[in-house]
Amino acid sequence: MLRNISLGTAVSEKVVLPNDTNHYSTIFGGTLLAWMDSTAFIAARKYAGNDVVTVSVDNVVFRSPLNVGDIVKISSHITFIGNTSIEVCVDVTSEKRKIIENAYFTFVNVDKDGKSIPVVQPSFKTKEEKEIYDMRKKQKECKKQAERLCLISS
Amino acid sequence: MLRNISLGTAVSEKVVLPNDTNHYSTIFGGTLLAWMDSTAFIAARKYAGNDVVTVSVDNVVFRSPLNVGDIVKISSHITFIGNTSIEVCVDVTSEKRKIIENAYFTFVNVDKDGKSIPVVQPSFKTKEEKEIYDMRKKQKECKKQAERLCLISS
Amino acid sequence: MLRNISLGTAVSEKVVLPNDTNHYSTIFGGTLLAWMDSTAFIAARKYAGNDVVTVSVDNVVFRSPLNVGDIVKISSHITFIGNTSIEVCVDVTSEKRKIIENAYFTFVNVDKDGKSIPVVQPSFKTKEEKEIYDMRKKQKECKKQAERLCLISS
Amino acid sequence: MLRNISLGTAVSEKVVLPNDTNHYSTIFGGTLLAWMDSTAFIAARKYAGNDVVTVSVDNVVFRSPLNVGDIVKISSHITFIGNTSIEVCVDVTSEKRKIIENAYFTFVNVDKDGKSIPVVQPSFKTKEEKEIYDMRKKQKECKKQAERLCLISS
Amino acid sequence: MLRNISLGTAVSEKVVLPNDTNHYSTIFGGTLLAWMDSTAFIAARKYAGNDVVTVSVDNVVFRSPLNVGDIVKISSHITFIGNTSIEVCVDVTSEKRKIIENAYFTFVNVDKDGKSIPVVQPSFKTKEEKEIYDMRKKQKECKKQAERLCLISS
Amino acid sequence: MLRNISLGTAVSEKVVLPNDTNHYSTIFGGTLLAWMDSTAFIAARKYAGNDVVTVSVDNVVFRSPLNVGDIVKISSHITFIGNTSIEVCVDVTSEKRKIIENAYFTFVNVDKDGKSIPVVQPSFKTKEEKEIYDMRKKQKECKKQAERLCLISS
Repeated sequence: MLRNISLGTAVSEKVVLPNDTNHYSTIFGGTLLAWMDSTAFIAARKYAGNDVVTVSVDNVVFRSPLNVGDIVKISSHITFIGNTSIEVCVDVTSEKRKIIENAYFTFVNVDKDGKSIPVVQPSFKTKEEKEIYDMRKKQKECKKQAERLCLISS
Repeated sequence: MLRNISLGTAVSEKVVLPNDTNHYSTIFGGTLLAWMDSTAFIAARKYAGNDVVTVSVDNVVFRSPLNVGDIVKISSHITFIGNTSIEVCVDVTSEKRKIIENAYFTFVNVDKDGKSIPVVQPSFKTKEEKEIYDMRKKQKECKKQAERLCLISS
Repeated sequence: MLRNISLGTAVSEKVVLPNDTNHYSTIFGGTLLAWMDSTAFIAARKYAGNDVVTVSVDNVVFRSPLNVGDIVKISSHITFIGNTSIEVCVDVTSEKRKIIENAYFTFVNVDKDGKSIPVVQPSFKTKEEKEIYDMRKKQKECKKQAERLCLISS
Repeated sequence: MLRNISLGTAVSEKVVLPNDTNHYSTIFGGTLLAWMDSTAFIAARKYAGNDVVTVSVDNVVFRSPLNVGDIVKISSHITFIGNTSIEVCVDVTSEKRKIIENAYFTFVNVDKDGKSIPVVQPSFKTKEEKEIYDMRKKQKECKKQAERLCLISS
Repeated sequence: MLRNISLGTAVSEKVVLPNDTNHYSTIFGGTLLAWMDSTAFIAARKYAGNDVVTVSVDNVVFRSPLNVGDIVKISSHITFIGNTSIEVCVDVTSEKRKIIENAYFTFVNVDKDGKSIPVVQPSFKTKEEKEIYDMRKKQKECKKQAERLCLISS
Repeated sequence: MLRNISLGTAVSEKVVLPNDTNHYSTIFGGTLLAWMDSTAFIAARKYAGNDVVTVSVDNVVFRSPLNVGDIVKISSHITFIGNTSIEVCVDVTSEKRKIIENAYFTFVNVDKDGKSIPVVQPSFKTKEEKEIYDMRKKQKECKKQAERLCLISS
């Protein structure tokens, strides 16, 4: 049985409070990372239907600062399903500014003892969904090889 | 004037409390990310001597779970200085287990209006410090090129 | 100039963590109230375009408990605009269970000194939007009169 | 066996910290709601002698703003006992200003599985205590009827 | 002009939530210390009429553990006024158990630049109030001398 | 079997955020106390090898204020081992200023039911370690006697 990939989406809107900022009134990086992990976690859990734990975070680039009082929207959707893992893409916007694009949080599906277990494979509603999924798969493989190359060459 | 790179180090030991965990008693990924950002921020601030803001997070891989009651040590040291940016490497260990190795948090040096400003270039006490620094520089360039290649090929 | 009422909507998905619960693992009422106020605040701020403060909370009824690990969706939309006030309706659901329906958070539009100032009046895209708005207006007037009556009679 | 209604009282004094405010230095509505729920919960738990959960919140009206640094006193006492429910009235004052008067938080008495169970009926020390109690009972019935009327008429 | 010493009192009732405990479900010492400091701070602020900062903490002894779900009452009252300082005694009880007795938090009265300034001297309503105050003064002097002795002798 | 006393050390570096301060931007005393208790707890746990709970706090003197944005270093090491208790000394510095020196947090070693159990006695690597330990023992005894005297005389 397959599960539709679009099940794994989540949205969270937040207002940046003094509680969330450093002493020059811009958001503390760690606060936004925690919000992103939480929203990505919900997307992964909705798809998996059971417990998941974060295994990696990649490509988080802050393009624009967030100030106290700003309203921020955190959106997450699934981009890849491995044997036991779920990759979630997270975007952050504020009004019309892009704050963070295409950050990747990967989770692993676990049983009650915390052991990784297989995750159901995805189905796609549209041709486009499938194409994006395949492209991300290639990109990930390319990146993995490149990283290995860079470790050897340096 | 140069500044010794070893100025930019910070250590933080923590105990994982129920407050920090998800409902199956392992640490919430976002909590650990916030702790890491905070420890990296201190290393960057110590070196820069003034305000810095997080601009990117990369290569965070959780190798082993952290349970409630575990004591965790977060260590950070500077690995690269750009024109206006400071790259900090973060390691997380618990007792003798490695939890996270070589995660990279990059900060940009900012003035009071939040504009990026030049950061002082580093000096090195030992030959080894210099070699590690140069290796990381190559690795970063290699990775950048590879990422560009992967975007084109996919 | 009028502003479309549908501008004032906000959504926030959350996972209930141990941090949010009482000692029998169901959500602490105060935690959910704070989440609802925050999501309602965002809806009001988006419509008002400037600062707002909470002035009243009404009709919050918890129909079903929320347990640790549950994923919860908080949705808010504007139901009435007074001279200086904005009424926001908040709904909370978890999976398919209704947790809270039609709770009302009212905000007042304020200037930098915290004084109440007029809020722009709403326009409507559909006939239905207008009908719901007028019905809520009547309901509020009816309730106000009834409350006065109940105070006298008791 | 009856239990004296005055057992169900609680008081909490707090100072408003930056942590509790929005970006214009007045208390965040949700923070005060959480404090009120917590103080009402203590009153209900003291009377019930076992676990209770919040089931409804009503008539919270903020009469005056609270600023950072203000000292606030939250007082709660029981106003009505149903078969399985406990109604708690909450008042908030700061120095001599009334911030919130007669907000009502209702709790239900639950067993270990979260099922509602009967709560012991109240006794009264003074004639006045009994009169206030009876008046509140009438007021609640009147309000309930009025709300039904308003739903039909609108 | 003198000020009545009984102005400087504060009470706070709290319920111990999972959020406040270590991984074996008893309250984290640091959490209770923060609650005590906050309640003592309110007593000192009420008496001083302006800003105060904590300068010392002494004689905090936990006589009995606090478990998740316990209701705790923190009471504070002023025991001594120095030239610029205010000593506050803090007691913690839960149901009828004494958790902490006679812990002392001392605050210094500060102006807007954080410099210590004189604090108004106390008046007493009853003979007993005055006797307790004088006894505490002697006790403090005795303790100071003893500490000096112990440093020399060791 | 003895255990080396130097096992019981812990360090935590922190940055003071708006979240941690009162409304005049200096750290809230209770926040620093909680940080100190946490760092002392880690030192005690490392030495004990199992659960410990805070039993007393003594001699916390704030010599210098901490402002928002300050980087603070909290260091803890064991100074005395009783039959079932562990005394930890905590120092706090910021840049080169001493904030708090020689504050003492004592913990008791507990089993799973929270009962106090014997703690392993310490060994020493250097003569100096032993001398400091013995001096602290004398100082504690002296202080105890003095306190008794002061209670009688006043």
